[in-house]
Amino acid sequence: MNKLFIVKIGGNVLDDPAALKTFLKDFASIREPKILIHGGGKIATKLGDQLGIESKYVNGRRITDAETLDLVTMVYGGLVNKQIVAQLQHKGCNAMGVTGADGNLIQATKRPVKDIDYGFVGDIHHENVNRELLSGLLNQNIVPVFAPLTHADGNILNTNADTIASVLAVALSVHFHVRLIFCFEKKGVLRDVKNLDSVIHHLPRNLYEELLAQKAFADGILPKLENASKSSISSPIFFELC
Amino acid sequence: MNKLFIVKIGGNVLDDPAALKTFLKDFASIREPKILIHGGGKIATKLGDQLGIESKYVNGRRITDAETLDLVTMVYGGLVNKQIVAQLQHKGCNAMGVTGADGNLIQATKRPVKDIDYGFVGDIHHENVNRELLSGLLNQNIVPVFAPLTHADGNILNTNADTIASVLAVALSVHFHVRLIFCFEKKGVLRDVKNLDSVIHHLPRNLYEELLAQKAFADGILPKLENASKSSISSPIFFELC
Repeated sequence: MNKLFIVKIGGNVLDDPAALKTFLKDFASIREPKILIHGGGKIATKLGDQLGIESKYVNGRRITDAETLDLVTMVYGGLVNKQIVAQLQHKGCNAMGVTGADGNLIQATKRPVKDIDYGFVGDIHHENVNRELLSGLLNQNIVPVFAPLTHADGNILNTNADTIASVLAVALSVHFHVRLIFCFEKKGVLRDVKNLDSVIHHLPRNLYEELLAQKAFADGILPKLENASKSSISSPIFFELC
Repeated sequence: MNKLFIVKIGGNVLDDPAALKTFLKDFASIREPKILIHGGGKIATKLGDQLGIESKYVNGRRITDAETLDLVTMVYGGLVNKQIVAQLQHKGCNAMGVTGADGNLIQATKRPVKDIDYGFVGDIHHENVNRELLSGLLNQNIVPVFAPLTHADGNILNTNADTIASVLAVALSVHFHVRLIFCFEKKGVLRDVKNLDSVIHHLPRNLYEELLAQKAFADGILPKLENASKSSISSPIFFELC
């Protein structure tokens, strides 16, 4: 099986044009098939402030009402995605910006309302990834660049970018040896988010559950760890931080 | 050769949710390979007003400064494009939203500054359409949905949607029998834009040039006629209004 790199970048890279430029140069130089997934960074929040749309989060996940959905569809699916694609094209990398709606690449389920109504948020599963189309694109040397959006029943849905990266990794591990890489601003998973040197180098399930119960993890790392702990994979996925 | 429908919709359809719904139902029911190109409608202008970005036009073409480019990248490439894609997916039409940057589908040249500096505007030519990738997508029953954006030198560029439709029609006429359809709110090309019944049913080149010199044509129809008059086509393209 061929290697496939799945790389997720978060806000710190997106919010810093110089860091983004350096990252995209490195990403473009990967010779193997590759997929990029990006979050939204502070641009959505900043634009939302200008438009009087308040950002709301619970447990690291954005609450997406109708106007927030329009905001993230514009910023994630339009501005951020297309700027990245244009820059990658300039570096000779044949990027194609997509959401889960495009080519039905990732069909979601609107998250059911339980204790919290997350609004227009999509939950996804690796069985609902259009792996045939994605593999076909990758085999044509196309580099899919995912904005963190999916779809269900005619609506765009906001979906956590880390979850998309994990679900794509699991779905495509049938066809490829997947390396899943999360790029973010910390040195790793921290025991104390205020202490940048408190990296946990090995996090077995019992320690994860213990620290989770203690609410030791900060918001941003929660979905990453949750996805990692849930993954059921058909070939080894290398999980890295950069 | 197979038929290919290339359909362009403008602001009047986009700005009316009921009209858009009806149009997308009709469009999804076309069984032949098809491509949709959309403009932006009033949403970009409205959002620009909210953000204090003024819309400027000369001869029917938007002047695109840096902040206007971000605006149209968000609205055309994100909001409008992804909403259309999600709705088409719901109707069983495997739409894929793209700009000219995605998959290098249409590479542009930034318009040179002469009398007017149009800003971040892309001029395009049918020889710079990635017809292999487009044909490949069409042959996999993918329906490309183009936002009116292209790229050059690492930048997204604003590009007239009518021009994109015409250039795609010419480029793909090598592989398909193309029907090019413009959907807009008037009954046809009008001699007097204020008189809805003044339709010109036949417009030979000499009459076109005479009326052009008289500045008889309103802004919106100018790029359509200009493209039609310039087209050099390799198989017949049916040009229709709906």
